[in-house]
Amino acid sequence: MLTSKVLTNSAAYLSRRFASNKVAVVLSGSGVYDGSEIHEASACLSHLTRHGIEPVCFAPDREQMHAVDHASGNPSAEKRNVLSESARIARGKIQSLSALRVQDVDAIVFPGGFGVAKNLSTFAVDGPNCQVDPLVEQTIKEFVSAKKPLAFCCIAPILAARVISGVKITLGMDKDDGNWPYAGSVEAVQSWGAKHENCTVSDVCVDETNLVVTTPAFMYNTEKFHEIYDGVGLMIAALKKLMK
Amino acid sequence: MLTSKVLTNSAAYLSRRFASNKVAVVLSGSGVYDGSEIHEASACLSHLTRHGIEPVCFAPDREQMHAVDHASGNPSAEKRNVLSESARIARGKIQSLSALRVQDVDAIVFPGGFGVAKNLSTFAVDGPNCQVDPLVEQTIKEFVSAKKPLAFCCIAPILAARVISGVKITLGMDKDDGNWPYAGSVEAVQSWGAKHENCTVSDVCVDETNLVVTTPAFMYNTEKFHEIYDGVGLMIAALKKLMK
Repeated sequence: MLTSKVLTNSAAYLSRRFASNKVAVVLSGSGVYDGSEIHEASACLSHLTRHGIEPVCFAPDREQMHAVDHASGNPSAEKRNVLSESARIARGKIQSLSALRVQDVDAIVFPGGFGVAKNLSTFAVDGPNCQVDPLVEQTIKEFVSAKKPLAFCCIAPILAARVISGVKITLGMDKDDGNWPYAGSVEAVQSWGAKHENCTVSDVCVDETNLVVTTPAFMYNTEKFHEIYDGVGLMIAALKKLMK
Repeated sequence: MLTSKVLTNSAAYLSRRFASNKVAVVLSGSGVYDGSEIHEASACLSHLTRHGIEPVCFAPDREQMHAVDHASGNPSAEKRNVLSESARIARGKIQSLSALRVQDVDAIVFPGGFGVAKNLSTFAVDGPNCQVDPLVEQTIKEFVSAKKPLAFCCIAPILAARVISGVKITLGMDKDDGNWPYAGSVEAVQSWGAKHENCTVSDVCVDETNLVVTTPAFMYNTEKFHEIYDGVGLMIAALKKLMK
């Protein structure tokens, strides 16, 4: 028992000793309908630096599923690259997801937006039968193996649910009372064996076993942008707690 | 004196009575190098709703000066529309700037980003000899005439300086100590007769006569995203005070 405790403490010490104080943020484009949800991504970066953590941005260097004209809501014929568009949020400081090494950062964050369901997985097209991008899947598995915490907001928790067996997550509320237009996605993650916890926009769901934190963000139909900022803030605070 | 005071109070009463509790936010694309700076724009929307104000987004319906690949920093041959790209920040809820009626809102906000200097004016190309987009110029003049307050952050205060005679604004610090790469722009606004006030990223400049509030935001070379969020928060708080 004593030996086990000493070993655990040593591991915690070493983990702190080698903490990078950097957190990876994985983007999927720029704009809610074909990329990362901009306000969620911005809130992630803002709360990370507020906690004294350096965000390091990554995105897959591949073509987007499509580009949507956000004024009309219609897909266009244009080809756009996920990394180049994500760089708009990252202000140019971004690397290909293939360059991410789990040992270089302490945790990983996935903001939401349809980019998660279009560019990081095929959820928008295939629903419950979706595939997660192989590099995204491998990345998530490496963080779980390294016992480094992961945060996902909005629709991004589907990535955790598809990759991490039996993970506990939230996608918001599982019934649409008019405020939860994507409540149907809860059934999909449950069909994969994930445990779903109902959460409001101002709450987080923490899976202490898998070190996974999730919050609904824009799964909730709100026009109050500060509710998103604050909900993401709770997610980043919970992530930081797991990093200790 | 009494009559004058009664009249003033009546005007204040009427102004409150007909307050829309809406504020126009004018975007110039989506992405720091060719459009609105995303984090400044997001912070404007977040702080407005936090104050119980409804933001209403507008952008000129015209072609961008150019599109910049934000990963490489290089301009591309692609054509993009200012309104369609701005809609990424506005989550689709946006109107052409030509539809903005000064009587429908209580104030107006211009976030920064190179879009201000490329799509709302020709400052990026013409510097001190720049032109402001005629519709943007007319809009600013209408708000000044109606005595409705205006807020500008980052490089956007050049619009106020070019249009409002003798206005007091800040573009940050007028000397580059390594943290103010765009300090040179101060000379341009001074050549137009504007008064420049040095401000840090966590301060605001208020022109009580013209009802103009400005803050440096990303004129300051920071990677701490929360400093931008908080600085914009001070700007919106000062704007709200002028709205009373």
